[in-house]
Amino acid sequence: MTATTNRRVVLVSHPKGKPTAENFRIEDAPIPTPGDGELLLETLFLSLDPYMRTRMNGTATYAAALELGDVMVGGTVARVEQSNHPDWKEGDVVVAYSGWQSFAISDGSNLRRVDPDSAPVSTAVGVLGMPGFTAYAGLLEIGQPKAGETVVVAAASGAVGSVVGQIARIKGARAVGIAGGPEKCAFVKDELKFDAVVDHRAPDFAEQLAKACPDGIDVYFENVGGQVLEAVKPLLNNFARIPVCGLMSHYNDAGAGASIDLSLTLFKSLTVRGFLQNEFVERLEPTFLKEAAGWIKDGSLRYREDIVEGLDKAPEAFIGLLDGKNFGKLVVRVAE
Amino acid sequence: MTATTNRRVVLVSHPKGKPTAENFRIEDAPIPTPGDGELLLETLFLSLDPYMRTRMNGTATYAAALELGDVMVGGTVARVEQSNHPDWKEGDVVVAYSGWQSFAISDGSNLRRVDPDSAPVSTAVGVLGMPGFTAYAGLLEIGQPKAGETVVVAAASGAVGSVVGQIARIKGARAVGIAGGPEKCAFVKDELKFDAVVDHRAPDFAEQLAKACPDGIDVYFENVGGQVLEAVKPLLNNFARIPVCGLMSHYNDAGAGASIDLSLTLFKSLTVRGFLQNEFVERLEPTFLKEAAGWIKDGSLRYREDIVEGLDKAPEAFIGLLDGKNFGKLVVRVAE
Repeated sequence: MTATTNRRVVLVSHPKGKPTAENFRIEDAPIPTPGDGELLLETLFLSLDPYMRTRMNGTATYAAALELGDVMVGGTVARVEQSNHPDWKEGDVVVAYSGWQSFAISDGSNLRRVDPDSAPVSTAVGVLGMPGFTAYAGLLEIGQPKAGETVVVAAASGAVGSVVGQIARIKGARAVGIAGGPEKCAFVKDELKFDAVVDHRAPDFAEQLAKACPDGIDVYFENVGGQVLEAVKPLLNNFARIPVCGLMSHYNDAGAGASIDLSLTLFKSLTVRGFLQNEFVERLEPTFLKEAAGWIKDGSLRYREDIVEGLDKAPEAFIGLLDGKNFGKLVVRVAE
Repeated sequence: MTATTNRRVVLVSHPKGKPTAENFRIEDAPIPTPGDGELLLETLFLSLDPYMRTRMNGTATYAAALELGDVMVGGTVARVEQSNHPDWKEGDVVVAYSGWQSFAISDGSNLRRVDPDSAPVSTAVGVLGMPGFTAYAGLLEIGQPKAGETVVVAAASGAVGSVVGQIARIKGARAVGIAGGPEKCAFVKDELKFDAVVDHRAPDFAEQLAKACPDGIDVYFENVGGQVLEAVKPLLNNFARIPVCGLMSHYNDAGAGASIDLSLTLFKSLTVRGFLQNEFVERLEPTFLKEAAGWIKDGSLRYREDIVEGLDKAPEAFIGLLDGKNFGKLVVRVAE
């Protein structure tokens, strides 16, 4: 530990539409001192994820809203700096939810131990963390792809989408990815080995998607909404499943949202299911961690990280994330 | 068999909005003659159900559209008049899908034998038939009510809704029904023993529904759409389930439909699942028939039939059904 203050990023105003740098304040506070049974955690990596936008509006969604002056929330990989807790010792690396700050106090609950030798620790908030698990649980529990079926996912080079498509392929399904721009599309096709990829910036995007799904769509893993959803709807097969994991293209809109006609769900016997990964953690996380580690080892699950250096860069990187400017799982390196 | 012709009702024009008598023609045709391996069926009861409206538009939905000149489709209770099929003999009573006509030829497939001694045979297209099974399968397979949860259903005095609420209660859940007018509401509360009932014609319907659901809604069995759906949305609990069985209030609208925001599904982890009872028949119908017969016997499943006399009355009765004019399961007595 070399830092002498707790650098942190707090919310100072609710964004109207896209967040701007002015919604955040970077400030320094004293490093807190752990009490009896507590730990001091130093953040190594901060995960930046689209859902954070929904917490900034001042209105509760599935989670309590952030209040002005609160430290921005977020998953972190952290190192135990001091421990007054029998289960943890200095130097342990953990996954925590300590937010956009360089230090935090924990009572030891809701921490997950990370083995620094098995994979780069940053993956514990990426492919081997919440985004990877979101993809795994949503796809397998709700999407339930069968061999030969077609699975479509947007933001396919991103933290969740990349895992959705690759697990779909592991299960014998056809993975069709949607990404923005030739570079990301090439990555999805050539590195992640999706069966097909479509650029959502193409003027004939809907036609291209239809061409990429000649047998229709059996699973649409929904993480964006917007024009992708509209292009997907006419291609859905009877009994298609739509796990709804996020609606990134709408997080900056106050009003107009993505919706689905109940007549479509009726006439096609669709399943639409919103979910948060939390509900599956207890039952499935251990299996996920074991399976995903195996898939990474045997090369069937690849990942790409977009690492931003320094907590001060978090607001800018987060704003870019909502515009799709990152390329791979976006994490901030907060300390070495 | 006393009739000398096959009276039948055919579609002669596609309705714009509500169907009118002019969309139908009542005509007489020769009674058909069964060939080798075939049966001649005489219709005893014709079931009238809201879904039929969706078949009249000339556009395919989940089922092929009716063409002009086609006999209207529908489930029937019929008696075997002549049999050239080894499995069936004259006098057998069956459930068939012979449509709005007094006679039909069958090859023996897709018939279900009815025991005329166990219950009035008309129930084979009602509480012990497709509507009852729709309620059973949709509620138990998709709605999955747990003891103490709140189940809401509209058209609660009708063929499907009445069974939904009563099975919900059998499973220990709280049943809240919605019906139109004091007479139907009293029937739902006093005869069907729902825990609460709300009149959708009340000017403060949404407030009354909220009051009737103090712990929110865990299962909304969707069969109407419209204002009921809108009043239900804010009351839905996290992890609520919405089996979508029908959208009666929209069948006469060409355009505007019922829809659900994906952000609502996301923030409340909702399950929305359109279904047709067909998909569950093979697996669940035998159990349903056994269970439902038992519930009728022990008084926990009650039903009411609205019997219209004569096939000529079918168009008028069907038009009234879409306006909620029937009271109980609507069937037409076609022959004695």
